This record gives sequence, C-alpha cells and structure tokens, in this order.
Amino acid sequence: MTEQGATTFQHEVLAAVFTIGRDLHGFASLKVLLWQRAQWPDAGRWALPGGAVRLDETVDDSMSRQLAEKVDLAGVSHLEQLGVFSAPDRVPAGPGRPARVIATGFLGLVPSGVTPSLPEDTDWETVDRLSPIALDHGRIIDRAHDRLRAKVSYTNLAFGLAPAEFTLAELAGIYRAVLGHDIDPSNLQRVLGRRGMIETVGRTAPPGASGGRPAALYRFTTADLTVTDPFAAFRPPS
Amino acid sequence: MTEQGATTFQHEVLAAVFTIGRDLHGFASLKVLLWQRAQWPDAGRWALPGGAVRLDETVDDSMSRQLAEKVDLAGVSHLEQLGVFSAPDRVPAGPGRPARVIATGFLGLVPSGVTPSLPEDTDWETVDRLSPIALDHGRIIDRAHDRLRAKVSYTNLAFGLAPAEFTLAELAGIYRAVLGHDIDPSNLQRVLGRRGMIETVGRTAPPGASGGRPAALYRFTTADLTVTDPFAAFRPPS
Repeated sequence: MTEQGATTFQHEVLAAVFTIGRDLHGFASLKVLLWQRAQWPDAGRWALPGGAVRLDETVDDSMSRQLAEKVDLAGVSHLEQLGVFSAPDRVPAGPGRPARVIATGFLGLVPSGVTPSLPEDTDWETVDRLSPIALDHGRIIDRAHDRLRAKVSYTNLAFGLAPAEFTLAELAGIYRAVLGHDIDPSNLQRVLGRRGMIETVGRTAPPGASGGRPAALYRFTTADLTVTDPFAAFRPPS
Repeated sequence: MTEQGATTFQHEVLAAVFTIGRDLHGFASLKVLLWQRAQWPDAGRWALPGGAVRLDETVDDSMSRQLAEKVDLAGVSHLEQLGVFSAPDRVPAGPGRPARVIATGFLGLVPSGVTPSLPEDTDWETVDRLSPIALDHGRIIDRAHDRLRAKVSYTNLAFGLAPAEFTLAELAGIYRAVLGHDIDPSNLQRVLGRRGMIETVGRTAPPGASGGRPAALYRFTTADLTVTDPFAAFRPPS
C-alpha cells in the first residue's frame, strides 16, 4: 500500500495502433500510426500517439481521449492494455520535468480500408521499415506486434484488421502481413470456418484485374474477442 | 508525450498470488495470498501484497522486491503483469497523502505443496469465501482469477499450480479449483498429453486411503508459458 511522502511519477499512455495498408507491389503490409515529434527529446523522430494522464481520468479514458486527437475513434476496432513500461531511464529528466515517467502501453487496431484523415504531423508507417523511433516507443511497437502475432493465432482478433467483407485471399494477406510468413487461404477457411469465426456473405467479389473465378466474400461472425479453440474438454458441462 | 508541470501520481504494485490448498473435505481449493492491513484506510481488512514503487526500480522489480517480504520468491512459479488499475478514487486521499495512486496489478502462482512460511499478518485465504477486501483489491483478485481461468484453458499455465509430480486425478482437482466445474481426468490426459504438455514420470503414486489401482504419476514437460494449440495452419512453413 501507499506510504506517506513516497515518490511520485508522471504517468503517460501510449498506443501502438496497427492497420493494414499496401506496399509498393500492392501486397498487404502492416502499418503503425506515428507522429513526428517537434520538441526535445528526440525532436524529429516518429513517436506513438498518447500523452500525460490527467488527475481526473483512468489510463483507459486518457488513452481514448488522446487517441481521438489523432484518429476518429469510431474507426478503432480494438484497444487493449499491453503492459507497463517503467525503466527508470525511459524518458530523460530535464529542467522542469518530472524525474520519472511511467507509461501504460496499449495495442490498437484499425480495419483495412478505413483511412481516417490524419493531422499534418501524423502518418501510417510500415512496421518492418521504420526509421529510428523516439525514446522507448520502438520497444512498445515490438511488444504490441508480438501480442498481435500471438492473438491472431489463438483468437479471432484478425476481425480488428479485416474489412467488413473480404475474400479468403485478402484475409490470408492480412495474416501474412501480421505473421511475416505465407498462410494458405484454404487453411484459413478450414480453421476459422469450422470454429464458426467466419462465415460466407452469400456474394462474390467483383473479378480482379487478373480475371479468374469470382471469389466468395466472407465476414467475421463477431467483433468480440474470442479464444478460437479453448479445449472442448475444459468447458463447463452443458 | 510528457508535459511540463503535469500531474504526478504515486505508483504501487499489487500481486494476486494463487496457490492450491485443501478445503475441509480434502478437495483442492484455490487460495490467494493476503495480509491484514494495520492502518488507515481499511485497517483490519485483507489486502494484496505490494506497495509503492521507488524512484530507482521498474514496476516488475518493485513487485519482486515487495513480494519477497511475504513469501520466498524461489517458490513463485509464475509472475506476470495483469493490468493497470487507475480509477481516480481507488485509494482515498488524506493528509500528507498523494492525490492519486495508480496500481500495476500482477498475477502470481505458487505450486501446490509448496507451503512457504509466512509473516504473522499474512495467510492463504480461500478465493470463493473471501471476507470484504481492502480498497479495490477484490477487483484485482477477480481480474487475476479471470486471467488464470482463461490461460489454463488455452495454455499450459497449470504448471504454475501443479506439484512437480501429480496423478491425473490430482491435476483434475487443480483444474476444478480454478475453473469451478468438474474436469474429466481422461480428457486432461488426452488434451495435454497429445499436445506434449504433460508426460508420464514412469512411476505410480503410493496407493491412497481408498485403495484401488496405483495411479501413474505425470509432470509438465516445460515451465515456459506455451499456447497449447495455436492453429497448425498458422505456423510458419517448416
């Protein structure tokens, strides 16, 4: 519990918000929302959106408030606490600045195709081609990417990145962008379809430039985070 | 990012540490480590171990340091960040006290059968029969229990609660204590054995008071947290 006269800290919130964009060859590519710092420290470097928590708000409310300054929150499909970043030297002390700043990091997702208008200093940057990142924000991006990679593998979290309707090839592209390796679209159908995580819409996509058979459109059945395959054996008896 | 003259907060760490004990009938029962507060606020109530973070330590180091005042850390099989608890009124303000205290909550586990000696004011209390808990610590316990329930269902995290060697009936008792419903021991063998999470030791347990066939002893194959069944389809091509 708390002690009288104990040390105090500034507390900030920082979000690594991912979306799916296109690379130069038109392939799906994982992007993260960054803004360019104007001031010391690390002026000119890319940084995560966020800032200091106020006296009257929770860290979660603060994150939503500060993220709303960068993107339309209605476009954010998922936002979760990632962890606390508290290395004593993570933010340099300076005149008029608190000795230490502790951060709560968040993982956020914006669906592919939602392209919110952004402030001048803000952009979506390609995750595997980032220039040097301010402070410890690169570590927060790495940790968020790890969490995302894990969760698309054992939950339905890809709903947070997928457009409302998609072909299996498009969904496989999203998985490849997150995981960094190829995914067989028919495996996606088997694994996610059998578990009731995706379903067909009943229509096909307009034929692409390359022609070929029209591809069926799918959607996620829920935007609630669900563990895809908890052991049936461990469920309560029904 | 940080602002000059921004609000500061005290930051504390609090751990919900679970173990498996016995109830009056000898059944496995989920217990949580609590100590009895001596001072305002909520003097006399049970509270989670922890306390204020110092200027020179991370929240994780602080948690280990403060937990070590209550239990031998060598007995703690698992410790992970749970989340940030930051409701503005979670700790009442008072004279000489900071206006707000933000907490990082942790989930900890101690294996069944490890019975560390405890300070006078500290004890293992049965999770489903807790008397009123100090401050918001009951919420932290609930959140930790939710996390534990979820993780024993899709990971091997039961390693953190199981003794070094156990029968399937004993392991089923641990799952029942965590999940709150019966688990078929043969399902445990099928699900965890097939995935290589548990293996036989090659010996049997001493026959119990009720006689019957000697039961095979098992152990967990690793104490590294592993998602039990990420979709084979989503693994990198080997």
